[in-house]
Amino acid sequence: MKVEASQQAMLKVLQDKATRLRIDSVRSTTEAGSGHPTSCASAAEIMSVLFYSVMRYDPHEPRRRDSDAFVLSKGHAAPILYAAWAEAGALPRERLLTLRKIDSDLEGHPTTLLPFVDVATGSLGQGLSVGVGIAAHTKRFDHSDQRVFVLMGDGESAEGSVWEAAQWAAFHNLNNLCSIIDINRLGQSQPTMLQWELEIYKARWEAFGWQALSIDGHSIPDLIAAFERAAQVTDRPTIILARTLKGKGLIGIEGLEGWHGKVLDKSAAAKVIAELESHLSGAAEEWKPNLPSTRRNSSQTAATVSSSVGTPPYAIGGKEVATRKGFADGLAALANADTRIVVLDGDVKNSTYTEEFEKVAPDRFFEGYIAEQNIVGMAMGLAARGKVPFASLFSCFVTRAYDFMRLAAISRLNIKIVGTHCGVSIGEDGPTQMGLEDLAMSCAQPDFTVLYPADATSAWKATALIAKQGGPCYLRLGRPKSAILYGPDEQFAIGKCKVLRKSDKDKALVVAGGITVFEALTAYDQLQKEGLSVRVIDLFSVQPLDRNELIASARTSGGVVITVEDHYAHGGLGDAVLWALADERVRAYKLAIREIPHSGKPEELIEKFGISSGHIVSAVKAALG
Amino acid sequence: MKVEASQQAMLKVLQDKATRLRIDSVRSTTEAGSGHPTSCASAAEIMSVLFYSVMRYDPHEPRRRDSDAFVLSKGHAAPILYAAWAEAGALPRERLLTLRKIDSDLEGHPTTLLPFVDVATGSLGQGLSVGVGIAAHTKRFDHSDQRVFVLMGDGESAEGSVWEAAQWAAFHNLNNLCSIIDINRLGQSQPTMLQWELEIYKARWEAFGWQALSIDGHSIPDLIAAFERAAQVTDRPTIILARTLKGKGLIGIEGLEGWHGKVLDKSAAAKVIAELESHLSGAAEEWKPNLPSTRRNSSQTAATVSSSVGTPPYAIGGKEVATRKGFADGLAALANADTRIVVLDGDVKNSTYTEEFEKVAPDRFFEGYIAEQNIVGMAMGLAARGKVPFASLFSCFVTRAYDFMRLAAISRLNIKIVGTHCGVSIGEDGPTQMGLEDLAMSCAQPDFTVLYPADATSAWKATALIAKQGGPCYLRLGRPKSAILYGPDEQFAIGKCKVLRKSDKDKALVVAGGITVFEALTAYDQLQKEGLSVRVIDLFSVQPLDRNELIASARTSGGVVITVEDHYAHGGLGDAVLWALADERVRAYKLAIREIPHSGKPEELIEKFGISSGHIVSAVKAALG
Repeated sequence: MKVEASQQAMLKVLQDKATRLRIDSVRSTTEAGSGHPTSCASAAEIMSVLFYSVMRYDPHEPRRRDSDAFVLSKGHAAPILYAAWAEAGALPRERLLTLRKIDSDLEGHPTTLLPFVDVATGSLGQGLSVGVGIAAHTKRFDHSDQRVFVLMGDGESAEGSVWEAAQWAAFHNLNNLCSIIDINRLGQSQPTMLQWELEIYKARWEAFGWQALSIDGHSIPDLIAAFERAAQVTDRPTIILARTLKGKGLIGIEGLEGWHGKVLDKSAAAKVIAELESHLSGAAEEWKPNLPSTRRNSSQTAATVSSSVGTPPYAIGGKEVATRKGFADGLAALANADTRIVVLDGDVKNSTYTEEFEKVAPDRFFEGYIAEQNIVGMAMGLAARGKVPFASLFSCFVTRAYDFMRLAAISRLNIKIVGTHCGVSIGEDGPTQMGLEDLAMSCAQPDFTVLYPADATSAWKATALIAKQGGPCYLRLGRPKSAILYGPDEQFAIGKCKVLRKSDKDKALVVAGGITVFEALTAYDQLQKEGLSVRVIDLFSVQPLDRNELIASARTSGGVVITVEDHYAHGGLGDAVLWALADERVRAYKLAIREIPHSGKPEELIEKFGISSGHIVSAVKAALG
Repeated sequence: MKVEASQQAMLKVLQDKATRLRIDSVRSTTEAGSGHPTSCASAAEIMSVLFYSVMRYDPHEPRRRDSDAFVLSKGHAAPILYAAWAEAGALPRERLLTLRKIDSDLEGHPTTLLPFVDVATGSLGQGLSVGVGIAAHTKRFDHSDQRVFVLMGDGESAEGSVWEAAQWAAFHNLNNLCSIIDINRLGQSQPTMLQWELEIYKARWEAFGWQALSIDGHSIPDLIAAFERAAQVTDRPTIILARTLKGKGLIGIEGLEGWHGKVLDKSAAAKVIAELESHLSGAAEEWKPNLPSTRRNSSQTAATVSSSVGTPPYAIGGKEVATRKGFADGLAALANADTRIVVLDGDVKNSTYTEEFEKVAPDRFFEGYIAEQNIVGMAMGLAARGKVPFASLFSCFVTRAYDFMRLAAISRLNIKIVGTHCGVSIGEDGPTQMGLEDLAMSCAQPDFTVLYPADATSAWKATALIAKQGGPCYLRLGRPKSAILYGPDEQFAIGKCKVLRKSDKDKALVVAGGITVFEALTAYDQLQKEGLSVRVIDLFSVQPLDRNELIASARTSGGVVITVEDHYAHGGLGDAVLWALADERVRAYKLAIREIPHSGKPEELIEKFGISSGHIVSAVKAALG
């Protein structure tokens, strides 16, 4: 690589910075007593060139929307990320020594407590999807020359989610996206499958539609040239395949196996640091950040949020409508009222009915195809850029993206996951298509708001509620059409249930959700005929729960509570309700799906698997027996 | 394609059979009123050539271990699978008309209720991993010429899990594996990303190390030739890229969009069937199944199971040992006692310690690299072949494979999933590395046995218990070392807890699991000093629960119950316990992780997030007012 004499000084500066990033990574991990210094060291030149030559950002205002974006997908290299921002002046260098401490934002893996982290990483293979989401946002909404960089490890490219992201990025010609793989050959426990077979890497990425560049990842001129080529390509994303040495520059352990996630003791660290320092050129430094050239995007991306979104178009006594349809109608109605909203779907838009949103706002609809992990990952990236993404999937396939949902929760992202076709009430398609664990999944995540509307009106309103609610939300929806329970002006709120039947002589409380609300109402009628009054609650908000109303209703219903849900028995609505009543000395009975279900007609399955009105009647009688 | 005159009759027979498979797929879905006839029709020639020319199996004994294996990854094409087995004589053709009915085994998507289904399918992108597991089994343990065929849809190849499976199969030179993609161009809601770009498909699969053959998927000679080439290759798996038409042969809807998952009404079906029947050549049929040539493998695969596995090597008062180590020691001890056991790991064998098993039984260890979905999918295939697979992962990354775990449950497979490094007690690595939803995930699945041992001895014993237990199991393990609570001869059982502290004046019951057992014991000591007796239970078996002991202990402890767990608050141990006591009018208090945690020292985090001995003491006092 021939470089101009005038560039030589710059190269020395970048090499010195790479060396200092190594020193800081060793120093902070040794101080912490744990961490991954060797995984940092292999990436030092990559980070130096990116942070001090390529990327445009303001170290003192890392959240600037017109900055280039950086995602550290190999999150275990967190110490070098922190060191890079410190070197840029974003935080004092001495703070690096608080790494991994309980009162420090510099956690073991990057989290969004830090202003320069968009999305938490550390579950390998997620960063590229996040980067794709950000890059897609820039392309569609910012129309700027901002670029997105994602640094991956080589071991993590075995994750299928990486290839989901790769295909989508190429399909959409995201030339503003550049990913780098730090190919240091060694995983945690042994060499990776491909080791340093860069030709195989290259063939795979090219086949997936990317410009692929193989380079020496410790050569600063090579890196600069590669990033330049990445910036020039007009029709595809770029992957830089950087051959590196794990532990590069850490004398005595460079390139050795058995050093993943291990730190140097103080004396070894002192030796390594002394050696590293001896390589510092001491070149005069005049580094200044490459600031974003314009703030023009802020106005372009400004979203409009109007509070008037109309009311649901369904009437009590009118024709039956599925809750998934109520959601989709609500979403389409919101499209113009809240331009932050974007929708992602997984080739099921004609079943989730998000095609209605697509018709109204095609530029804010993203078809994700059958790749649920990448869909949720892209949604995370879009949320990090201020959008309100609704990712709609069949609820059974939300299981596929649970790890992404988990990181969305940890990242406190404003993401909405919508699971349709829940429960045995989907009918004939059979057990593999029935979402029966989605309440367990979503409610387990702290701070997830979880709504489960029973009719189309409440589904419409729930959609508007979660669009407004900050933070992660899950909306559970059913397949079958059902009657309209609520008028268009009925008020719903997160954390509030609906008491549908109530008297001053109630002997038991029945708490239901979704389709079982109708079963509970039928049971109510039958029990009334037999002279027995029960209270009926449509839970609506599974998390948070309407604890006060549940307690009040349980107390005035004899302390006998029957819950009924189209969900597996553990971790569902029943468990949520009982814990709300844990201090009340109630007697509770949980009707739920207790075995692997089967194909059949919805009403047959509701009967066979124990959640029908008949089962509710029997449970009430047994409880009062 | 030139064929011998003598083969012409055979080709006619195969074409007639393809036509009959189409007829049966239309007839059964029309009768059912739902299903995917167009997705069946595109695959009719593929199925015909596979079932009546290529595969060796016995229609009257589909479970024969020496058969070639077939996995219908595109599970929504179930009707043609059933039709193919009916055509082969495995079931009476009239039974096809029971499709999707509640009392029929012919469910909407294939399940293991059928003797010819190894693993339930219908969550797209899983079948290839299952096939890889079966193919690896054949290679390693059977040393036979059995072959494995996996039929995928084109839309599903967008799933990342497919590429996880693809890379592993090529890395292990599984030339006995042949997958076919039915490239009918149309997904559910719109064309796929690649449509009919067979060259791109080919480049991707070749880059991933497969022999890739592009053919006309409706040409029987092309199919025969492709399967022959697949059989000849010695060093890699083969993918057959079959260009097809969705709805092929269904007059009026062939190749049209908007026909996914839609059935023909009776009159349209009658017309289509009449047209199809007119194409039947009526060639004289002399088809006989291609029986497996030998039963020799049954003896080769015979596993030995001995009941004597020794005892755990830890002593009460001896040095501290982590539960993950107890598991790994137990697993290594079981290696020779039960040769059905195989172990899969995700590049963390030096942290899960499964490297100990690898040392003892290297031929039964599978390194899955960082690709959790494929690891669990391969385990499902291995379980379907009679092995007892232990898939060990960090518990936080089990979330990644939840959809596979769900299908393992539906398939009632004998699979063991082991999640190590659970909870905040992992410490400094931070929230992305903490498995805090794994009990919610595993307990939600019906029939999953879930054990959560507190010390190395019980972890060792739990490992032996789940190896013996039929069906899916989850084992939850921690990172930190802890004291030994139980002697080597202590007896443990699934569904039984351990009462560790007990008196006749207990005022409250504390139920703990894993590391919180030690917190509960410390709390006990402190409360004793203050003159307050509490009962302490080590839950051990989270599912099933020791309901009788919990009820008895709650009754004799004043009906006050405190649960404490290193797990998120919803769906964990506390919810399981409270439901066991739901009819007891107890007062319960749940100590659990209620917010996104942070990096820090384990003991700091246990304190900060509310599950320490101090919190237990406070909760007991608060409960007793």
